[in-house]
Amino acid sequence: MKEKQAETGIKLLWGTANLFSHPRFVHGASTSCNADVFAFAAAQVKKAIEATKELGGVNYVFWGGREGYHTLNNTDLRREFDHLAKFLHLAVDYKKKIGFTGQFLIEPKPKEPTTHQYDSDCAACMAFLKTYGLDKDFKFNVETNHATLAGHTMAHELTYASGYGMLGSIDANRGDELIGWDTDQFPTNLYQTAQVMLAVLNQGGLGSGGLNFDAKVRRESFEPIDLFYAHIGGMDAFAHGLKIAAAMRADGVVKEMLTKRYASWDAGIGATIEAGKADFATLEAYMLAKGDITPNTSGRQELLENIVNRYLR
Amino acid sequence: MKEKQAETGIKLLWGTANLFSHPRFVHGASTSCNADVFAFAAAQVKKAIEATKELGGVNYVFWGGREGYHTLNNTDLRREFDHLAKFLHLAVDYKKKIGFTGQFLIEPKPKEPTTHQYDSDCAACMAFLKTYGLDKDFKFNVETNHATLAGHTMAHELTYASGYGMLGSIDANRGDELIGWDTDQFPTNLYQTAQVMLAVLNQGGLGSGGLNFDAKVRRESFEPIDLFYAHIGGMDAFAHGLKIAAAMRADGVVKEMLTKRYASWDAGIGATIEAGKADFATLEAYMLAKGDITPNTSGRQELLENIVNRYLR
Amino acid sequence: MKEKQAETGIKLLWGTANLFSHPRFVHGASTSCNADVFAFAAAQVKKAIEATKELGGVNYVFWGGREGYHTLNNTDLRREFDHLAKFLHLAVDYKKKIGFTGQFLIEPKPKEPTTHQYDSDCAACMAFLKTYGLDKDFKFNVETNHATLAGHTMAHELTYASGYGMLGSIDANRGDELIGWDTDQFPTNLYQTAQVMLAVLNQGGLGSGGLNFDAKVRRESFEPIDLFYAHIGGMDAFAHGLKIAAAMRADGVVKEMLTKRYASWDAGIGATIEAGKADFATLEAYMLAKGDITPNTSGRQELLENIVNRYLR
Amino acid sequence: MKEKQAETGIKLLWGTANLFSHPRFVHGASTSCNADVFAFAAAQVKKAIEATKELGGVNYVFWGGREGYHTLNNTDLRREFDHLAKFLHLAVDYKKKIGFTGQFLIEPKPKEPTTHQYDSDCAACMAFLKTYGLDKDFKFNVETNHATLAGHTMAHELTYASGYGMLGSIDANRGDELIGWDTDQFPTNLYQTAQVMLAVLNQGGLGSGGLNFDAKVRRESFEPIDLFYAHIGGMDAFAHGLKIAAAMRADGVVKEMLTKRYASWDAGIGATIEAGKADFATLEAYMLAKGDITPNTSGRQELLENIVNRYLR
Repeated sequence: MKEKQAETGIKLLWGTANLFSHPRFVHGASTSCNADVFAFAAAQVKKAIEATKELGGVNYVFWGGREGYHTLNNTDLRREFDHLAKFLHLAVDYKKKIGFTGQFLIEPKPKEPTTHQYDSDCAACMAFLKTYGLDKDFKFNVETNHATLAGHTMAHELTYASGYGMLGSIDANRGDELIGWDTDQFPTNLYQTAQVMLAVLNQGGLGSGGLNFDAKVRRESFEPIDLFYAHIGGMDAFAHGLKIAAAMRADGVVKEMLTKRYASWDAGIGATIEAGKADFATLEAYMLAKGDITPNTSGRQELLENIVNRYLR
Repeated sequence: MKEKQAETGIKLLWGTANLFSHPRFVHGASTSCNADVFAFAAAQVKKAIEATKELGGVNYVFWGGREGYHTLNNTDLRREFDHLAKFLHLAVDYKKKIGFTGQFLIEPKPKEPTTHQYDSDCAACMAFLKTYGLDKDFKFNVETNHATLAGHTMAHELTYASGYGMLGSIDANRGDELIGWDTDQFPTNLYQTAQVMLAVLNQGGLGSGGLNFDAKVRRESFEPIDLFYAHIGGMDAFAHGLKIAAAMRADGVVKEMLTKRYASWDAGIGATIEAGKADFATLEAYMLAKGDITPNTSGRQELLENIVNRYLR
Repeated sequence: MKEKQAETGIKLLWGTANLFSHPRFVHGASTSCNADVFAFAAAQVKKAIEATKELGGVNYVFWGGREGYHTLNNTDLRREFDHLAKFLHLAVDYKKKIGFTGQFLIEPKPKEPTTHQYDSDCAACMAFLKTYGLDKDFKFNVETNHATLAGHTMAHELTYASGYGMLGSIDANRGDELIGWDTDQFPTNLYQTAQVMLAVLNQGGLGSGGLNFDAKVRRESFEPIDLFYAHIGGMDAFAHGLKIAAAMRADGVVKEMLTKRYASWDAGIGATIEAGKADFATLEAYMLAKGDITPNTSGRQELLENIVNRYLR
Repeated sequence: MKEKQAETGIKLLWGTANLFSHPRFVHGASTSCNADVFAFAAAQVKKAIEATKELGGVNYVFWGGREGYHTLNNTDLRREFDHLAKFLHLAVDYKKKIGFTGQFLIEPKPKEPTTHQYDSDCAACMAFLKTYGLDKDFKFNVETNHATLAGHTMAHELTYASGYGMLGSIDANRGDELIGWDTDQFPTNLYQTAQVMLAVLNQGGLGSGGLNFDAKVRRESFEPIDLFYAHIGGMDAFAHGLKIAAAMRADGVVKEMLTKRYASWDAGIGATIEAGKADFATLEAYMLAKGDITPNTSGRQELLENIVNRYLR
């Protein structure tokens, strides 16, 4: 692989290990009830990190695989979470030991194959990382289809992750909101690709991360040429989404409306609160003196949706 | 109210404030784009905490109300989260200032009225509390119907919250998994009440918390007697659920199977890992020496479901 | 109203009656367990049809309202369906009696306010109309948000209804696939408006029907100008959707691919089957002689999605 | 197989054909865009019906397999429905020709593997059968997990099918309402087995049909003994469900409340309406004379749920 990389100049976005297909992982890997499986997974991930380093990989992805449960009747949830945290700490230790400088990523997903995956969404991953002191060592690899399976829009997951500096990379696919499983279809919706690129531009790029097609052609698209149609379509959709996002940012109309909407926080009582100079007693006094709030204005959702539509046509 | 409490001996489980019905809260309370609304809400919660203290309340509940968004187009998500955290910090400060010793609770809910509520589920609340250093000052008030709207079983939310010492109180109602809104029906399902009581018994009770019927009779049940049927039915369902849970704990069959399932973690390599005495290198050496894992055994999901069924009939 | 119509030239798309808001309809109208409610509803619909005729209305819509159930425990489903059919037969009789020539429409919806609405989707309505001999007298008024609540795309409902000559009119709104209730938002998605207009063009228009905004601005959009933004945005979205659909039809690329895909049905064994000249025995003989099928070709889903995207940008 | 049947006395509940696993059926069987596939499927079903007859089978099941679509972009929905109907007519003709007297069954399912299955639920199947004149020749094989994937309770599908004399057989499994795919788990919920048995008893049995475990043990339950636990648990759940249903029928409390609830239809204006002796004009006159309806009474949903609970404990 290293030779092929040298020949083509193609670099390695990330490495990972398959800790879910072999029957050994039937009850999970680091969260298995069988401690040997933890050890086996450790050996496997050790080797995968080494290989990723050797190939110049700039990220390493932990996808939850079978880390979750099918029934709480046979599951010690807290103990399994503790084991998951222990495993990731050992991975961080090993990364430092061998001097691998790539970014560690975890990939949120709420279910499938298990009934409940521990890395269910960005917020659940954040709770886990914070609880176990791992939040400085990991970012998220966010996938569109996993977001919607968790009941969130992709834009929500990106905005949340990005807002806390945790957006590391993106699995650029799509699902079907009316379907309850992971379809991993190639992305084609321009609204969605524009939203993704907007989130990426807003945080100044993805750093060492990238857009990765975790997508497959449909079973019915079984001819080799379908692979080309799918990849070209997906890339075009993102290229066009990038243009839309860039145009939105250049115009600044939406941004300006947003700034204006929160203006009350930039001065007066809002600024006082943000500066930490108010408490319940002073706020009560302020409001008793004022009588009632400065009237609210409309959220302008419909207008904003119309404005976004301008960039699509 | 204080007089009536003295007359009847009825105590106050928790106090709260309505920060969502009045048009003033149309864009949220502490997360409103209008800083005055934050101030107004502060004054209101200040008074509500004082009243709760005066009435001997042992908890104070923050339900998310309109703290969330309808569209990301007009929302600065991170700034709104910061304001929410600021608000809760001020509440904690005020609580300490006046010597209110009740437990602060936040109540997870994923949507309705907003498209996305910030306190979406227990994990999202945990992420928020940990991020803003509030996790020592709050516990969760978990509601069945909110759990299922978030795509989780109530048992999951309880087990997760309880596992991290965060289960403070319970809104004892039920929804309809095939319906996408909050129906707040009275609980009647014995499987569910048994699971709830099992979670409560497993953590040794709810401390200052309790089981609160956040439930209403159906619109079609409009006669006064329906209120009696509903409350009696709900209480009976929990009473029977308690008996089931107590019987399960007394027998210990399920617990014993659980203990046996994780036995590999109580000695040998499992104990070594849990004790923090293993790393990727020693685990690799262990597995290379051993060759492959000790074979897995079945998860016994069907048997366990059969065993649970024994207690219902 | 008649005077205002004369002044403005505005015509009446359809009339209807509210058989759901008054407590009298708490258990439904024609499907109420209370026979008096059926009689009351009959009197009310009689008057509404008369008014619709008087005002030159070209359709009359029956929206299910509370025709459904909350629990099967208290419901005689078959008897309620029989009453619904009886009611619609009486309406047809009355329509003929007074010479009202407008189209009768029923509007599919799966739930809300009831747990199960009898007119749950187009197929359920078709089953009902065929079962009770009403299919010649009714068409469907299809609503986007009702389609997705039933787990169908709007395109599915339109294609199904149109395929059987049952597409009469359209409630042009949108919901949110990740939200489980009827949000009745104004339509803005160009993929969706293009699909709707394509279905309309493909059947040569809507006859006496039309596109009706069964939509409301968001609670947060409470200023009068929001009504303008919303209606203008919705109309623009449909105008642009119409252009997209017209361009797709003019090019004929998608249609051509479709024709080619089913070519095996236009000659040879396919034509023989469609002509009713084959049976299981002749088909078995044909296949035994041939050995195996002519190989399948790809469904080209990704290519088709790319082609559709061309019209949006 | 015939010999084994003779040895054991085990009879054949139904025969069927696999028209979905082989790549030949990638675009469906009778609804394939490739006419040869229709012919192939015809030959295969011909043989399967012959085998079923030879083995004394009392039903023949058509499960939709890949009869549906993934995208409407490449699908002529009406033409595919026409082909499906043609196929089933040929099957009926062949059945009569060879004197097979078993019941033909179709099995509703809304999605998986396709995005939309043509036999989506009982109502959709009813619409299809009525439209194509096939309703006298088919009944439904209703599956719990398919019902919930379609957004219906199993009780709804059974009550609907049974109400129109279309309930022929049952696939006795269960899904997980919070999971969006077909889990085909063994049934264990006593509320659900009681509901199923109540529907069966209410229609006097299943005729030639039966309860068939279309269920599999979980991937994690991989030991042979798990098959025993699963089957025994499923059978016990139905045995206990039968006892509950029988007790409910013997007591007659629920039935009595139902009869009372609809009493207004058994005499007076209700009976007049049901007898076809009322029209809109006479009903208007009746209501004008009466003034308003006889007041509604509560639907008693909570009481009924409490009563049902009595039988479980």
